[in-house]
Amino acid sequence: MREIVIGGAQMGPIQKADSREAVVERMIALLKQAKGAGCDLVVFPELCLTTFFPRWYMEDPAEVDFWFEREMPNGATKPLFDAAKQAGIAISFGYAELTPEGQHFNTSILTDREGNIVGKYRKVHLPGHSEFDTERAFQHLEKRYFLPGDLGFPVWRNMDALMGMCICNDRRWPEVYRVMGLQGVELVMLGYNTPSVNSQMADEGLEKRLYHSDLSMTAGAYQNSTWVVGVAKAGDEDGHPLMGGSIIVDPNGYVVARAAGEGDELIVHACDMDACNFGKSTIFDFARHRRIEHYGRICSQTGVERSA
Amino acid sequence: MREIVIGGAQMGPIQKADSREAVVERMIALLKQAKGAGCDLVVFPELCLTTFFPRWYMEDPAEVDFWFEREMPNGATKPLFDAAKQAGIAISFGYAELTPEGQHFNTSILTDREGNIVGKYRKVHLPGHSEFDTERAFQHLEKRYFLPGDLGFPVWRNMDALMGMCICNDRRWPEVYRVMGLQGVELVMLGYNTPSVNSQMADEGLEKRLYHSDLSMTAGAYQNSTWVVGVAKAGDEDGHPLMGGSIIVDPNGYVVARAAGEGDELIVHACDMDACNFGKSTIFDFARHRRIEHYGRICSQTGVERSA
Repeated sequence: MREIVIGGAQMGPIQKADSREAVVERMIALLKQAKGAGCDLVVFPELCLTTFFPRWYMEDPAEVDFWFEREMPNGATKPLFDAAKQAGIAISFGYAELTPEGQHFNTSILTDREGNIVGKYRKVHLPGHSEFDTERAFQHLEKRYFLPGDLGFPVWRNMDALMGMCICNDRRWPEVYRVMGLQGVELVMLGYNTPSVNSQMADEGLEKRLYHSDLSMTAGAYQNSTWVVGVAKAGDEDGHPLMGGSIIVDPNGYVVARAAGEGDELIVHACDMDACNFGKSTIFDFARHRRIEHYGRICSQTGVERSA
Repeated sequence: MREIVIGGAQMGPIQKADSREAVVERMIALLKQAKGAGCDLVVFPELCLTTFFPRWYMEDPAEVDFWFEREMPNGATKPLFDAAKQAGIAISFGYAELTPEGQHFNTSILTDREGNIVGKYRKVHLPGHSEFDTERAFQHLEKRYFLPGDLGFPVWRNMDALMGMCICNDRRWPEVYRVMGLQGVELVMLGYNTPSVNSQMADEGLEKRLYHSDLSMTAGAYQNSTWVVGVAKAGDEDGHPLMGGSIIVDPNGYVVARAAGEGDELIVHACDMDACNFGKSTIFDFARHRRIEHYGRICSQTGVERSA
């Protein structure tokens, strides 16, 4: 038994006018709640220090850079790191990263229980588009403001478990879980900001969007025998609704904890990392069953190539 | 609108003593029922001409070869091909194939509406083991009796749609759907013989096993924007229960038809191949979103390699 009590710290909406300091206060309140619930590790959402700014079209680079962090921790987030260290709780959260070289990434980090950053991930699968799209009900400009991640999908040993991260739209791509699965991952952490409405299909509806979110994470968990924790930023941000649906998924693909609302809300589950062992050694014993000689297209070909 | 009315012809148990001729009679009865329901295409299960013989440990090669077909069609299956041609219905079904070179495969074929074989697939992901396993509640000797398939995951144009096949345990591997998705697949057909009991975990239970079957097929459908038709051989074969749960899944990952029982049973759905277009051109527009530079492990590495 290698038990890690994990908290998924869903966050309610963050308005454009809200300061990072005010957001960090909310995160610390969730952290205190997690301490009370016995959590060892708390996962916060994607881009959780600000509103989901890629919905806004901006041309002025200075206006864009306002939403990015030049270092981590920084003045605004130092109190969060301090609180986590004091509580002895490892944390993971997402933010917009501006590197010293001027590169922009959609990033998440992982700390140990002493508040040291032990892992960094940069979002690989950026959804949306890069120019103003007059045909969409609203904009989703991640391809405008971020570069695709350049760190791959690493796995780190932390708290005696193998942990990896991905972000939002990454969760819909089975390649993501598999690349981590091939490194023995036991816990995949991810945050998301997912609009409640499909900007290209108005009648899709929230229920279907939650189903697709669940489906991707439960399949990724089952097919790689790993825990998956997916945490939303939810609710109405300046008139733009984001879905909730934060979940913790066990290595059999079952949802064991689920957020009920669209506000700041902690979900908790005691996750035994040894629960990954059965699947990894039987039906998903990759060494015994995978046949890479037939997978070539996955790595050699980006888009569809029709031969028939 | 490119509508194909598809029948999933689930089959009840086939006992060891049942002849191929008797089984083909049952298949023809299902085909007639499909004709009455307006079907254009009917999908039958894996290894559907005989009992699921890999549960029996055999040492005598002649005893093994009894379960294999040396040509297709052959005397026993000719009436099925004739009936399909007469009805103008394309069919797909699975059988144990013995090649002229003496190779053994777990195979499925696809015909056009004139009864011509237009596609052949050989199962790649063989589950189970090759030697008698005293620790299992029962044997699952596919690795003993079959070679891994050597044809990859081709996609064929048939009835103005792009069609592919896989078999049983293949359905749990996201690589399978993705390799076909990268060829633009619009319909994945598969049959299975899945024991109702996990031979290595007695308390897993039928409900969980049906969930995993659904989960794998619905995720594969959604993540590749393709129809998936999964058809069981079900019921009690000489004391060994096989699960049912045959389903037709739409390109949004929703189950639109499901078998109710564990006997011979036809499920039917009018499947519009154009329903694949939206997903393939937006969220799963592979050319725009996939990042193959980070997928290398999937094709270069068979088993888990821990670096952390």
